[in-house]
Order: sequence, then C-alpha cells, then structure tokens
Amino acid sequence: MVGFWHRLGTKGKALYSATLSPPFSSPLTLPHIWVPTQTPNRPLSSGFHPVKTGATGQTRSAAEIMSGKPIAKDIKLRVAAEISRMKAAIGRLPGLAMVLVGYREDSHAYVHIKLKACNEVGIETSIVQLPQDCTQDRLIDVVSSFNSNPSVHGIIVQLPLPEHLDEETIINFVSPEKDVDGFHPLNMGNLALRGREPLFIPCAPKACIELLLRYRVEIIGKNAVVIGRSKIAGLSTSLLLQRHHATVSTLHSFTNNPEQIIRRADIVVSDVGIPNIVRCDWLMPGAVVVDMGTNSVKDPNSPRGFRTTGDVCYEEAIKVVSAITPVPGGVGPVVISMLLSNTLDSAKRAYGFT
Amino acid sequence: MVGFWHRLGTKGKALYSATLSPPFSSPLTLPHIWVPTQTPNRPLSSGFHPVKTGATGQTRSAAEIMSGKPIAKDIKLRVAAEISRMKAAIGRLPGLAMVLVGYREDSHAYVHIKLKACNEVGIETSIVQLPQDCTQDRLIDVVSSFNSNPSVHGIIVQLPLPEHLDEETIINFVSPEKDVDGFHPLNMGNLALRGREPLFIPCAPKACIELLLRYRVEIIGKNAVVIGRSKIAGLSTSLLLQRHHATVSTLHSFTNNPEQIIRRADIVVSDVGIPNIVRCDWLMPGAVVVDMGTNSVKDPNSPRGFRTTGDVCYEEAIKVVSAITPVPGGVGPVVISMLLSNTLDSAKRAYGFT
Repeated sequence: MVGFWHRLGTKGKALYSATLSPPFSSPLTLPHIWVPTQTPNRPLSSGFHPVKTGATGQTRSAAEIMSGKPIAKDIKLRVAAEISRMKAAIGRLPGLAMVLVGYREDSHAYVHIKLKACNEVGIETSIVQLPQDCTQDRLIDVVSSFNSNPSVHGIIVQLPLPEHLDEETIINFVSPEKDVDGFHPLNMGNLALRGREPLFIPCAPKACIELLLRYRVEIIGKNAVVIGRSKIAGLSTSLLLQRHHATVSTLHSFTNNPEQIIRRADIVVSDVGIPNIVRCDWLMPGAVVVDMGTNSVKDPNSPRGFRTTGDVCYEEAIKVVSAITPVPGGVGPVVISMLLSNTLDSAKRAYGFT
Repeated sequence: MVGFWHRLGTKGKALYSATLSPPFSSPLTLPHIWVPTQTPNRPLSSGFHPVKTGATGQTRSAAEIMSGKPIAKDIKLRVAAEISRMKAAIGRLPGLAMVLVGYREDSHAYVHIKLKACNEVGIETSIVQLPQDCTQDRLIDVVSSFNSNPSVHGIIVQLPLPEHLDEETIINFVSPEKDVDGFHPLNMGNLALRGREPLFIPCAPKACIELLLRYRVEIIGKNAVVIGRSKIAGLSTSLLLQRHHATVSTLHSFTNNPEQIIRRADIVVSDVGIPNIVRCDWLMPGAVVVDMGTNSVKDPNSPRGFRTTGDVCYEEAIKVVSAITPVPGGVGPVVISMLLSNTLDSAKRAYGFT
C-alpha cells in the first residue's frame, strides 16, 4: 500500500491495488458476452472500440450517441426469459406493488410506464391509490400489508408525497427485502460501504453504469463529476461510480464555479432538473456525458404541447463530447428495465430460485 | 431552483437555497456559545477571525495549528457535567461495552485510551476479550448479550478482526441503537441521505468537522478533498462534509494524478495511513489541512523506539497552509471525546433523559 501510494504520488498513474474490493457489478452487467464488465485485470478486448474519455482519449469527429433503447430492450428480453424459466420451474411470478397518493400528472405517467413494462415481461402488478389527504397511518397500513404479502416482491411508494406525509418515515417502513427503488437507508448504507452488497441499488445509477459499461466507457480512475445529489439519482450515482473506482466529485447548489470543476471531468453525470443548464463550454472535449435530466419544456409543435429535454444542451454538447445520452431515449428506458430487473432479483431471492 | 442554478451557472457564486436542508450539526456543535455552528443565514460574527480557506482566503504568514487537545478537554468537561446531571436526576450512568478478539498492540492501545477517557467522565465500561481463534458464533453471542443489556448504551467491536471472522456480519449484529462507532449500514445510510439524522455518526468525521467549526473554517461551498475512503474516516468524512455543503471530491488508490486534484482544494482531509505522503507542493497556499493519519515510524530517540506521525509532511505544510492539525494532538483526542459524546447521547435516548 505504501509503495502503491508513493507510486501514485510520484508517477501520477493509478494502478490496481489488491487491497481494494473489485468494482461492483449489477447482476445484469456481469453475464454479458458482447459487453464484458470492466475488471482491472481483464483489459478491454482489442476487438472492441471503447469510448475513450476525457484528456486521456481523443475527441471524436462525431460524438457517440449512447441510446438506452437497445439496452433496455435487451434487459427486458433477458428478464422476461428468466421469468418464464421461473414460472415453468416453480409456477411463480414476480410481483410489484405501487402506492400512489393523490393525483400528479408526472407520477401517473411514470406509474403507467412501469405498469406497461411489467406487463411486457410478465411481472404481476398491484396498485393502491390513496386520496391526497390520506393519513400517514393509512399509508403505512398499505405499505405494511405489501410487506407481509408473499406474492409481492417489490414495493414502490411513488414520490413525491404530499407535504403532510413524512417521506422518510414511509420509506423506513418499506421492507428492505422489497425495496426495489433502493431508497431504504439500509440499502443506501450498503451501497456506500465498499465490500458490502446492497439488496437493491436505485435504478437510475444502475442505468447510468449500465450505459457506460455497454458503451465501453472506462470508469476506473477517471474523474467523474455528478451534478446534483438527490437520493434518486445524484447521490446514489456518486456512490456507485465510486464503487467502480472513479474519482468522484459531487456538485450541488452550494458549489462555487461548478463549470470550472465540470470542465475537468472525464465523465459528467447530470441530475439537476433544469433544461439546458449544462452548456458546451462547461464540458471538456472528449468527455462522456450521461444526462439524467427529464425536463418538460413547452413546445407548441408537439401534440402534447410540451416536449422532454435533459439538463445538457444537447446540440452544443455533441460537438465537443465523445459520447452522450440523448433525452428522451437515453437513461430513461434503462431505468425502467432496471426496476424490472430488481423486482425479478427480489422474487428469485424470496423463492430461493437461481 | 431554476433561477438558483442559473445564477450558479452564470455568476459562479453559491447562494443558499431554501430547497436544501440546513447544514448538519452534531449535538455537541450546536450549543456552543463561543463557537456558533455555520448556518448560511447566520454569517460569522465579525468579532471572530475565521480561518479563510484556499483561493478565497489569504495565506497567513504562519499557519494556525488546530490543536485538538483544548477541544477534547472542553467536550469531556461538558460530557462529564451531563453525566453528573443524569446521575443526579435518574441515578443512571452511560455504559460502554468493548469486544476484543486476540491480541494486537495497536488495538489494545486504543482500548486503553478509551477506557481511560470513559473513566474520566464517568462512563461505566465493560470489556470482553476473546481468544484469537474464537468462533464467529461466540463473538455474535457476546455482541447479542450486550445488545440486550439495558445498562450498555454503546458497543464497540475493536477492528480489525482476525481473518476468519466476517467483520460485515458482526457489525450488522450490533444494535443500530448502540452503534456508537456509527459503522452499522443503517447509520451510514442515514448519514449519506441528506435530511435524515443517523443515530450515530462515526467519531473521526465528527472530530474533523468539530475541529473545522471550532477553528472557524468556512465549509459551505468550499472545495474539499478527502484522500482515502475507509468507513472509519475517509468515506464517512466525505459524507459529513457534504452534509455541510462542501463540494467534496473523494480520492483513492485508483485516482490519477491525485496531487493535481489536491492542489485545487480549500480543505484537505487525509486518511491514507502513509507517513508524510502529502507534500507541500500538493497543497494550495492557504488551504486548511486535517490530518487523520496515525502512523508509527521508528525513532531511536523515542523511549518507545517509535513516534506517531501523520500523512502530511507537517514541516513542509505549515509553510504554505493557513491551518493544519498536528499529529499527535490534532484529530485523535477529539475522536475519543466524540466516542464519549456518542455514548452519552445513546444513554440519554435510552432513558429518555433530556
């Protein structure tokens, strides 16, 4: 370790240290044949052409567009196949339960997408919708009933909740064994602590890493900047990137001169929620950008009157970065497929099915 | 939020956002009169002369030596006073239990220091020492008995454990309500998640923040670099600094060119475990350095044949930094006082004593 750190200090080159745990890989990233996960002792096959990141790579004439659609499709197919195998073997299906409080346009849209995806792969779903003014006790009753229901393997409390309900208390009530969102502090703690394996990792960071790995972006030792620190995306992505041995800087609304820090990043993950806030002059040429923003902007030309855009000014960014996720069609579809994957994993654990 | 982030992007100045939770403060940092904790809406009193950090501050002709001894003494006095008050009111004392497996020179030295400190403030202690080859079940039995013992309010399993014992499993067995080390994943998760209050914060990061606050170092919006990511110090310090709204970058053995990143930091926290690895040319003039390293180096002039030194080359650093913790006498004494404080807090919770 001493020698290692001294080399690190003098030569300025990162080496793999046996004293560190290997990079974390989600169950779905390990078995890929066409996309082996990054393990320091298994260099990228020369048969592939990985996206080089940042200063250590070359700027491409055209940025690689990291579409999430084919990845989501692949994951869905594999989840569906596993569910069929489980059904054939033990006659059981995974079950996902969702709780909605009151009515929010966006929440209902998300729930609709989740229902559709579950239906595609064969996950049973149940939804309880409670009135806007429901009591905390009533919500806890519903969650508790799902906790004790053996045919429910995943529980989602759709956020945000109305002001009068304590989100923290509710999330604490979700059984960590059914916490497919990965927001329970026990799962978050096991995500933060290297060497530990959380039962569930939040879907957004899993999707981010999946995209990077599938598009063969080097993560180990790279300077990664995560803009935003929500538990849904930013915070958990920082923790997961660090498990993959990136050097992670987490930016937030107290950060001074964020653009200066972002400009030094090989990998930029944005979780801000403001359309086009990240401009091309914030990005290092050759950087890889994962845009987690899902922002609605008015668009009279759209039949719905609005369109979805990310945090990154896409038109500017593609001129300087080496790879970028589009919005829509980038992280979003993969996030949903990760929810299916988490629910399947939970059911397999519950039934001891391997 | 939009306007805020836009200001952030264009003006490059951090402003306090009402949408963010206020900085986290440990129970012991809040009540200070002579050292108010940093809250964005309460600017530092002009009556004080805070240590200015990094580029935004001025380099001092002489670095401020952030001694931990007076802070540790103050905390011990206040813990002792609280224990006396509790004893007088309800006739109870806090109890700390420690488990040691096998014999390690350093572990026994640490336990000795903890015992001495507990004795000074009036915390009852009990120690169980198990043989080097004890079984996991036996160790779990001991931890379980402490979990169920109402006169025990804090449990420490002295780390590292022998190879054949699974540290993770053992730490999971410590009741989160008695986890005064703060290593249980539930407490670590609540530390990572803003807005949540862990029952216990690990003592090293608490000591780091306490030192910064007492020496009036601005944390909010500052670029902080934490070198190392152990759960005992580095990882948990990164999480706590982020709760105080620093912009935190966590460096580790995979980091490329760490000195370049450290050189941009207003606040440098070192948790490497290698004597003098951080040299003066790694530090920005005016930076504030918290050295968490506790390294033994041979010293024929010392009666013990060795002396304790930090990770930072102190003689070099004091010429460029604005403030630095010495080793020994910096973080160390405060860490021990934080253990006393955590144990007192736990006893107060257990007895409902306020």
